[in-house]
Amino acid sequence: MWQTNDEALESIAIGAGILGTGGGGNPYTGKLRAKEVLKQNGPVTVVPVDELSDNEAVVCVGGIGSPTCDVEKLRGLESYHALRAIESYSQIKATALICNEIGGGNSFEAMIAASSAGLNIVDGDGMGRAFPELQMKTFFIYGAPYVPMSLCDEKGNVVYITEALNAKWVERLARASTVQMGCVAAYALNPMSGKQIRDTAVPGTLSLTFRIGESVRKARLQHEDPVAAILRTHPGKILFEGKITDLERQTTGGFARGRVKINGLNNFLGELLEIEFQNENLIAMQGESILAIVPDLICIVETETAEPITTEMLRYGFRVKVLGFPAPAQLTTPAALDVVGPSAFGYDLGFTPISI
Amino acid sequence: MWQTNDEALESIAIGAGILGTGGGGNPYTGKLRAKEVLKQNGPVTVVPVDELSDNEAVVCVGGIGSPTCDVEKLRGLESYHALRAIESYSQIKATALICNEIGGGNSFEAMIAASSAGLNIVDGDGMGRAFPELQMKTFFIYGAPYVPMSLCDEKGNVVYITEALNAKWVERLARASTVQMGCVAAYALNPMSGKQIRDTAVPGTLSLTFRIGESVRKARLQHEDPVAAILRTHPGKILFEGKITDLERQTTGGFARGRVKINGLNNFLGELLEIEFQNENLIAMQGESILAIVPDLICIVETETAEPITTEMLRYGFRVKVLGFPAPAQLTTPAALDVVGPSAFGYDLGFTPISI
Repeated sequence: MWQTNDEALESIAIGAGILGTGGGGNPYTGKLRAKEVLKQNGPVTVVPVDELSDNEAVVCVGGIGSPTCDVEKLRGLESYHALRAIESYSQIKATALICNEIGGGNSFEAMIAASSAGLNIVDGDGMGRAFPELQMKTFFIYGAPYVPMSLCDEKGNVVYITEALNAKWVERLARASTVQMGCVAAYALNPMSGKQIRDTAVPGTLSLTFRIGESVRKARLQHEDPVAAILRTHPGKILFEGKITDLERQTTGGFARGRVKINGLNNFLGELLEIEFQNENLIAMQGESILAIVPDLICIVETETAEPITTEMLRYGFRVKVLGFPAPAQLTTPAALDVVGPSAFGYDLGFTPISI
Repeated sequence: MWQTNDEALESIAIGAGILGTGGGGNPYTGKLRAKEVLKQNGPVTVVPVDELSDNEAVVCVGGIGSPTCDVEKLRGLESYHALRAIESYSQIKATALICNEIGGGNSFEAMIAASSAGLNIVDGDGMGRAFPELQMKTFFIYGAPYVPMSLCDEKGNVVYITEALNAKWVERLARASTVQMGCVAAYALNPMSGKQIRDTAVPGTLSLTFRIGESVRKARLQHEDPVAAILRTHPGKILFEGKITDLERQTTGGFARGRVKINGLNNFLGELLEIEFQNENLIAMQGESILAIVPDLICIVETETAEPITTEMLRYGFRVKVLGFPAPAQLTTPAALDVVGPSAFGYDLGFTPISI
């Protein structure tokens, strides 16, 4: 068990930017919101998955929308309201909360709601990274129910999806409401038992964001290479290094979609990398050659500081390193690859894990 | 009190086509569905608004979507499922049902659900015609609550909207889900008391559709002019007569939107009428001159038979008469005109009632 103090939030924001693989909402605004709420209500205790008793009622909360809108639209306690809404619908009081996805601003959403409600949060999440769509959660892939869910916006609108053909239909319906709500909203899922969390969550990911962020901050202070520090803390590799020279980005269908081109520098001089994204980075290609593809993580960081650059912050001229990390084991089973593998994003490609 | 037998359904389909003012869903497919359900479960008793006791729990059910999709997409008992869903959410058993709008196929939706549930229906509705958007109900204009509502599709998806800024937000959110559901769905509103129905509904409209339809069928049998028979039964006027010569129609944003041009015949030879519609006919214009505008009713009927031609059935070559009817009094108060008057549809025009 550990507590999310102010220093921890600084580190989590960096680690969340890395594991967000480009998405999950803006970690900087998420951090500011978390700081404000935690200043009022006190820090939140982080409980390991293994210490959950079976009769816990763990509610997953998170933000939904486009990261491009997330940095433009003020948010408040929508995730807390979504928590109260699902408690009201299910008639079950939550005993703890868990992140929907560990990436980006979503690392803070459960914390914000938990601080407001006086609850603990679980050290884990439902993706082990960030993914753009709701059905892409390990909770659902491994059998936890995808309905009911509540969806709230900052205006006070509340929608429930209580029956759906499958988790993908929950995504379709929630996304359509989210677009109306201004392309950013928050949701909460039906309470899960301790056993359901142990069986389906990716454990330890909040601690991991903290450790990654700590290593970066320490390296910066000591004038060491923060990218090397990341890779020592969380095994991965440098896929590419260069300068962003082109960017296409649209807010369409409730997502930020596009591609970014990076011209090589140093060891990669004369080479070109293209990354396609749907909120999160999906594929990193050099011509026909695929360097990394979902569900593996593709993270763009600023070369000197290792500051993660999320999809909505990409722009011409950034000097960046592109890092690749293997997906958590829960994302590479055949059942998971059906939902989060290359074909789920429209690529007619199998999943080839990166070698590190 | 009267009962909806097979013959009554034939008449209601015609009257519903007239009061639908172009929309409300296809009355022919609505009639076929009602016949099938009533054959299985028996006819439905129609209860006057005045005979409702205060402690009734009257649920409004209806279809939502684009009429163009309504004739292409098979439907079943979605409105019955929406009824059961709102009963489950509100924990109140319905004692009777009422039409959301009296026009088109929606005249049959409450009947279908009522027959399935063994309930009566109220002789009235929430519009006194058909309108394209949910917030345009007299229920809401005169103070009945617009949340919670349930929304169901034929696939088994169920969505609730339980809090909303206003009735227009219910429309936005429900429309977005409806588009995902295939542009046709059914909904049910929170149960209303007998007093709420008496205070807010447009009474007697189901009987009116029946009487209009009876007059048309009788005139046809007796080789009399069925259009004249309509106008004797329900005071209105012939706005125009001609041939449909041009049609623009798009399914966009969950509605059928467009305009139809009618070249004059007989008394109107050499003249041109244009009608704009959003599911329902909104405005009938001859050049700069406005012959009729919402909330007054603009109805296109086949010249010889007086068969109503709804928006989705319009096509080149139909010989038609265009009828105008004054809106019910509930739709022409200042409060109502804010919601269903010309400006609510984007026309920078005041409401000028037709003279008959």
